[in-house]
Amino acid sequence: MNRYPKITLVGAGPGDADLISLKGLKALATADVVLYDALVNEALLEYTPKEAVHVFVGKRANHHAYSQQQINEMMVAYARSHGHVVRLKGGDPFVFGRGGEELDFAAKHHIPAAAIPGVSSAIALAGLQGIPLTYRGISESFWVITGATTAGVVSDDLYAAAKTNATVVVLMGLNKLAEITGIYQREGKGGLPVAVVQNGSLPDEKVALGTMDTISARVKQLQIAAPAVIIIGDVVAKHEHFAVQQHNSIAV
Amino acid sequence: MNRYPKITLVGAGPGDADLISLKGLKALATADVVLYDALVNEALLEYTPKEAVHVFVGKRANHHAYSQQQINEMMVAYARSHGHVVRLKGGDPFVFGRGGEELDFAAKHHIPAAAIPGVSSAIALAGLQGIPLTYRGISESFWVITGATTAGVVSDDLYAAAKTNATVVVLMGLNKLAEITGIYQREGKGGLPVAVVQNGSLPDEKVALGTMDTISARVKQLQIAAPAVIIIGDVVAKHEHFAVQQHNSIAV
Repeated sequence: MNRYPKITLVGAGPGDADLISLKGLKALATADVVLYDALVNEALLEYTPKEAVHVFVGKRANHHAYSQQQINEMMVAYARSHGHVVRLKGGDPFVFGRGGEELDFAAKHHIPAAAIPGVSSAIALAGLQGIPLTYRGISESFWVITGATTAGVVSDDLYAAAKTNATVVVLMGLNKLAEITGIYQREGKGGLPVAVVQNGSLPDEKVALGTMDTISARVKQLQIAAPAVIIIGDVVAKHEHFAVQQHNSIAV
Repeated sequence: MNRYPKITLVGAGPGDADLISLKGLKALATADVVLYDALVNEALLEYTPKEAVHVFVGKRANHHAYSQQQINEMMVAYARSHGHVVRLKGGDPFVFGRGGEELDFAAKHHIPAAAIPGVSSAIALAGLQGIPLTYRGISESFWVITGATTAGVVSDDLYAAAKTNATVVVLMGLNKLAEITGIYQREGKGGLPVAVVQNGSLPDEKVALGTMDTISARVKQLQIAAPAVIIIGDVVAKHEHFAVQQHNSIAV
């Protein structure tokens, strides 16, 4: 067993265990300890050596949640006591994943640390739906924004985004959906296509398709809940069921 | 051999062959034909059955380049003649990859098609440098923009982006670097940190760190060439060598 302290942040991908990278799997195969988040597929833990310690550090209903500071301290303490700590994080470690704070903490404590990128929900969940984030003649860019700012309000960036033609992806923003649609409606974009994807890439995936004017009702009708990503822009109309769901929404 | 026509778009990741997903590898293992781009790591072709046909369809100096229309037609023709076509694309298939156009073409010809997301250069190359695209208190969003628009000019989205606090990632934009730095300088952001990464995730990776005012000289000094990604924002200062490279740049 490797007892030299070392930390590897690994992106686990958006949910489907097969969306982890080969490099991430190789890191898991040499892990002495895995600290994993709530959105990580637990099937991935089977790739570790059988004596590896698995520690759940995510937030779940009725569970004690660790603070970021506690996670940082556990990460360093386990590296010192056990060796190679894999910090397994949903999606990509640096897309609203606080991977940067964890690298900073490791550096402060002189523990060698590296990161292995992941397939980000921000990009992958649109693609798996057949929604291209960019498309010649429709969108030249995409803008990924958190719905959960430190201040608890909708990010200023979303107000700016609503004025542009960028495809916009909002992570962790389902509870702000009414505010988000309002921002776009005030820009005169009530007809702009929107998709909301819950549990993307997993067997229980749910998708709502609509426009700024109709999406909230559609999300309610389909009983879509967090965690979900919101995808905004004309590219959403590329979804093969967009036209049909629009028709149904109008009929409701 | 599976002779039913089928097309799978697979994201090969940013360069390092180990950054492909397990799901992408499984698709390659059942490929009858692989159509692959210039930025794809050819080591990935070893994961196909040994009788699979490998067709290079990318652009390279002194090589004939196929048009997108020709690639679409080859994809469908090979699916009909050989069975499972894997369309292996650098990064993620839908991040400026024309994956959407390929799905549309497959649908028009009634060939079943699916996409497997990839680790996008837009996200991963920053992370591998220890640059977090988002960081609490620094950046609540990131905006990914192509430097190679259909019209050949800098995207309007970049002018908008320069007015915001979003981290900005420009793909395929190295030959527009002077225009990009000019746009930010006119916004009074000459001191904003920038990184330029060539051949990210590969052994011959090169990185230039600077500010809007210094990055062009730094890129020239390090002889950085395309393909490269440009990462813009205060998060770039999180790179462990940022302070040192700044000092050296000033000394040059």
